[in-house]
Amino acid sequence: MRIVWSIGDPHGIGPEIILKSFLKLARFGHSFLVAGSYRVMEYYRDALDLPVELKLVESATTEVPCGVLPVLSIAEPENIIPGTLSAEAGRLALESLRAAAELCREGVCNALVTAPINKESIALAGSSEKGHTGFLGRMFAVPSPTMMFYDPVTELKVALATIHEPLQRVPGLIRTMDLDAFLSALALSLKRDFALAAPRIALLGLNPHASDGGVMGSEEQEIIRPCIERLSGQLRIDGPFPADGFFGSKMYRNYDIVVAMYHDQGLLPFKVLAFDTGVNVTLGLPVVRTSPDHGTGFAIAGKGVAYERSYYEATLLAITIAQNRKKTEPEL
Amino acid sequence: MRIVWSIGDPHGIGPEIILKSFLKLARFGHSFLVAGSYRVMEYYRDALDLPVELKLVESATTEVPCGVLPVLSIAEPENIIPGTLSAEAGRLALESLRAAAELCREGVCNALVTAPINKESIALAGSSEKGHTGFLGRMFAVPSPTMMFYDPVTELKVALATIHEPLQRVPGLIRTMDLDAFLSALALSLKRDFALAAPRIALLGLNPHASDGGVMGSEEQEIIRPCIERLSGQLRIDGPFPADGFFGSKMYRNYDIVVAMYHDQGLLPFKVLAFDTGVNVTLGLPVVRTSPDHGTGFAIAGKGVAYERSYYEATLLAITIAQNRKKTEPEL
Repeated sequence: MRIVWSIGDPHGIGPEIILKSFLKLARFGHSFLVAGSYRVMEYYRDALDLPVELKLVESATTEVPCGVLPVLSIAEPENIIPGTLSAEAGRLALESLRAAAELCREGVCNALVTAPINKESIALAGSSEKGHTGFLGRMFAVPSPTMMFYDPVTELKVALATIHEPLQRVPGLIRTMDLDAFLSALALSLKRDFALAAPRIALLGLNPHASDGGVMGSEEQEIIRPCIERLSGQLRIDGPFPADGFFGSKMYRNYDIVVAMYHDQGLLPFKVLAFDTGVNVTLGLPVVRTSPDHGTGFAIAGKGVAYERSYYEATLLAITIAQNRKKTEPEL
Repeated sequence: MRIVWSIGDPHGIGPEIILKSFLKLARFGHSFLVAGSYRVMEYYRDALDLPVELKLVESATTEVPCGVLPVLSIAEPENIIPGTLSAEAGRLALESLRAAAELCREGVCNALVTAPINKESIALAGSSEKGHTGFLGRMFAVPSPTMMFYDPVTELKVALATIHEPLQRVPGLIRTMDLDAFLSALALSLKRDFALAAPRIALLGLNPHASDGGVMGSEEQEIIRPCIERLSGQLRIDGPFPADGFFGSKMYRNYDIVVAMYHDQGLLPFKVLAFDTGVNVTLGLPVVRTSPDHGTGFAIAGKGVAYERSYYEATLLAITIAQNRKKTEPEL
């Protein structure tokens, strides 16, 4: 497998966690490639004294000796100032992401693992891009890719039915979205990417106590329960469960994936159970894409204290998903 | 201190966890009293072979030897069938609660620890009461008592700004409720009940990422932030925090209490962190009231397998709160 790492914001912890992950992964028998800037990688390698041999390459397919990390230069910023906002940094982050995704689209790389980007630096660079998921959705013409979180320690998987929405909009979105299509696509993704022939899916309720039979809200009775009934012939799907009791009593252990109705309902239990090891996966794209479950870490950038665990796990997961896809999809 | 235990639903696990808690607490130097039914207590004592000596008493102040549990008979049901709904059971649960709360109002008992009740049995008994908090609020003319959860192991405390509301109503309620008054009353309760002179309060945002500066929702900018600014002269209060990151990074350890904007936002992390040991406290009442953080457990009632930890901890907390109140309030 050839994995491409997009460098993320060069003023954040991205280059550092890439270097630290490479130190652990270099001898796993896969190829890695940074899409970004040679100067930036060299800067952090030297500043943090990380024993990684870098090599500037012209092409993603240039062969390098084992233990050497090839860097494809997308742009070379003039200034590198960890922890600061900058248009130049935002531009590099965005262009590296685009180039890395392109390499996956062309089949040159098998999976993309993104390092964190900074929305504000990207805005300074003149772009209104808000995050990876939206950017990749547009690039690959997938209207709403699914955001999923995975913890390799507990094996907990949480998918979000709605993502970065004001809470006020959530009940209306649950009513108007095509929940059947969302769940069917989710089941297909789990089959293809996680090699789960018949994934067991748990749906959380929207309201407290999953509305207690309609006492507190009606979405469970009117939307979620009918959806489960319609799909129960094709999918292994249960719910709607009261979210707090479901996680408190560890019922998630009985399921391959938990579907939360909104951001905090999924991320609150997920981050409590899996903060350092959590991984973000974008389902439904033609390319494999994972990322760590944290941001640019400006406050600690350039200090050598960033913990690479989540990025390392994101890379391992990307390899696994790419391998699973190879098994089910014939080579073109 | 004299603590009164309301028996809860006699077909649930209430009587069992009362008996098991008494076995642990009998020699702590406090007095305990069951408000309920002698026959019910005797039934579970014998059925589960729990070595507790019971004594039917005429009055809450009747002295009993150490190690004997006095029972005030509120009603004596004809049938005791664990795990089943019944009007008779609902009536006993409600009347025991009323009697126990009355004993606290009169100052005969210092604190009330309630066992779980069943809404459906109470409905069969012809009452529309939905839960303890609402019942006690009306009984003591406190329009909206605060629901707080406490975990003695982690010392986590979570209060809810809105409680059993459909998710759709939450943003509107946050806009219209008197958040200033709610937080000031909360600080006073923590001072009086938990002996915290200047409690450190953390407020969670309503929206994902606490709206990321207004990108996803406006309640943080328009309601929560201005409220924090207004109160910051009088209270130690920080926020609004992105809920998932706040719990994921264990920031709650820096605060005496976390205020969640809605039910699942507070209960999801709380139940993951404190399922067996969590305790429910009603703040703002003239009487002290705690309860376990679980329901009637019909599925396991009468089987001897109910775990009394939460009820035991609720009783310990009730004693602590009653003692703290005694320190600050002169005897009448």
